[in-house]
Amino acid sequence: MAALPLGLGEVRDAERRLRGRIHRTPLLTCAALDRMAGRRLLFKCELLQKTGSFKMRGALNAVRSLAEERQRSGREPPRAVVTHSSGNHGQALACAAREEGIPAYIVVPRTAPRCKQDAIRAYGATLVPCDPNDKSRAETASTVVQETGGVLVHPNQELAVIAGQGTIALEVLEQAPQVNAVVVPVGGGGMVAGIAVAIKALRPDVKVFAAEPSNVDDCYQSKLRGELTPNLHPRDTIADAVKTSIGPNTWPIIRDLVDDVLTVSEEEIKRATWLVWERMKLLIEPTAGVGLAAVLSEQFQAVPWDVQNVCIVLCGGNVDLRSLTWLTDLSGKAAE
Amino acid sequence: MAALPLGLGEVRDAERRLRGRIHRTPLLTCAALDRMAGRRLLFKCELLQKTGSFKMRGALNAVRSLAEERQRSGREPPRAVVTHSSGNHGQALACAAREEGIPAYIVVPRTAPRCKQDAIRAYGATLVPCDPNDKSRAETASTVVQETGGVLVHPNQELAVIAGQGTIALEVLEQAPQVNAVVVPVGGGGMVAGIAVAIKALRPDVKVFAAEPSNVDDCYQSKLRGELTPNLHPRDTIADAVKTSIGPNTWPIIRDLVDDVLTVSEEEIKRATWLVWERMKLLIEPTAGVGLAAVLSEQFQAVPWDVQNVCIVLCGGNVDLRSLTWLTDLSGKAAE
Ligand SMILES: Cc1ncc(COP(=O)(O)O)c(C=O)c1O
Ligand SMILES: Cc1ncc(COP(=O)(O)O)c(C=O)c1O
Repeated sequence: MAALPLGLGEVRDAERRLRGRIHRTPLLTCAALDRMAGRRLLFKCELLQKTGSFKMRGALNAVRSLAEERQRSGREPPRAVVTHSSGNHGQALACAAREEGIPAYIVVPRTAPRCKQDAIRAYGATLVPCDPNDKSRAETASTVVQETGGVLVHPNQELAVIAGQGTIALEVLEQAPQVNAVVVPVGGGGMVAGIAVAIKALRPDVKVFAAEPSNVDDCYQSKLRGELTPNLHPRDTIADAVKTSIGPNTWPIIRDLVDDVLTVSEEEIKRATWLVWERMKLLIEPTAGVGLAAVLSEQFQAVPWDVQNVCIVLCGGNVDLRSLTWLTDLSGKAAE
Repeated sequence: MAALPLGLGEVRDAERRLRGRIHRTPLLTCAALDRMAGRRLLFKCELLQKTGSFKMRGALNAVRSLAEERQRSGREPPRAVVTHSSGNHGQALACAAREEGIPAYIVVPRTAPRCKQDAIRAYGATLVPCDPNDKSRAETASTVVQETGGVLVHPNQELAVIAGQGTIALEVLEQAPQVNAVVVPVGGGGMVAGIAVAIKALRPDVKVFAAEPSNVDDCYQSKLRGELTPNLHPRDTIADAVKTSIGPNTWPIIRDLVDDVLTVSEEEIKRATWLVWERMKLLIEPTAGVGLAAVLSEQFQAVPWDVQNVCIVLCGGNVDLRSLTWLTDLSGKAAE
């Protein structure tokens, strides 16, 4: 096994940096869903994290490590932080930067939904519009970095971000030492990589599963082929936050430490999301339904039954309440 | 002060009977709502309680005390429990009875929404249909009691129910000793009465406020006149679970121990509900928005500013996801 880009030490450092600055989110249970799964489910409620997703962990750890490093070498704190995510990472970075008193610039495609733009603005960040394509995004971000003297914080390949997400695992192990497996939705892979690093260092007996929409199954394909295989033409998915592909820093960790990748259909994601709303009263976004969908899927039946206590990360709750039509359409079906 | 129907001892007994059988629900905070209120808000998440509302506390305490009393006097456990609430108490009693292995009969108007009937049936209770008026309801319940040899458990005037709801306060005092006030939606008054008994016995410095829709303000009117004044012609309210009036057992407790009653408009309730959904990601039912609505209302500005830490009971989450139209209608307004 080659040396991985990240170890438990960095996750422990992140834990120290975040202490008292983020919510220790509750681990909730639901008897009705236990019965459906035939196992004991432990839901790690990161939708209740500051800014509505686990992304606050990685973003705040990144901002604070930057400041810490600079201080250590006798330099000024960073002039600004920059990113090109209009989603949960953008909001989290904006909020983290404000808490640390550093300006944030978020590059956002002109076409991004207004509610997302509003949320970022509400955290006091500066929006920088770009054209809705990867090239314009990257170029705009790079221009902003140069002009502001800021630092780009990548949403899932930045090591401090991955380490921050890993603190989820430290909390879960404390809250539920009896846990046998953790199921984590995967997009760029920052969350599952951080969690895997912590879990496998501390409790190698605990399984780590990545869960992914089959419409954007680059993590599954990469594991299958044994090499990083990004989605060149990702299909659409209701789990919009995981449309992005895993990358060079998360891939080796996923390759070596993630036990398996489970893929789920759009229907399974919608049904799981609906179940969490109805049975648990938690307003997750569809991306957070991917983990439960995997555990309720047929393929999960193949997981040995002594894997009894299964933690599912409910990773976010930033759903646009103004666009609930798909839920109302679905309601009839899910209730059957 | 005349002797009250209930004291701290009964709430402590309830705590013992419920231990390990209900969820210790989390107390969550939200910086954005703190800013809006100008105080530190502590949300007691009873929507995450078993059956989706705090009603499980009172129902389970009632069922278990019945069994305990009978055992003490060498008699058989009750043959059945009966109630005429198709709402949260009906669901909770059905669930509590099943857990204790006792049959439950729930009298339900033929016109009750199918989703409520389904929920009660899912807990294994027997539905007994009646005509949609108070007379038929009471008569049917009384027939069922006679025919089954069961015991009627009133949703809010039964003392064991009130004592069970009081355990919310014991948990809040442990979770947040810094609390200065508790705000509690009031319908029949079982919840606010139980909470007031516990709070005023243990921490008389902590204020207890009842919160009520102005459309059904019998609790407010009763306090104003100093005598029990039920709603003879209650108007409609989106907070349907508190349409009912306070009664003979809860009134003296409310009269003597509740500091004030705050009333709120339908618009205020909708806006508060929307805010909890959007900012906290918690799927409360509109009735649970009544407490936050009161704290955000103009009249609450008159509460001294040293009342800094305010606990709001988010009492339930049994909203019919199939009927969200009012939320979508409202969304534009609330976001302004
Ligand atoms: C709610 C939510 N879940 C999961 C993910 C995926 O995380 P990662 O990209 O670290 O795999 C994201 C990323 O944006 C997210 O916002
Ligand atoms: C969600 C919810 N909140 C508040 C209440 C009011 O409780 P009480 O009748 O004990 O005042 C009820 C009663 O049904 C309820 O279901």
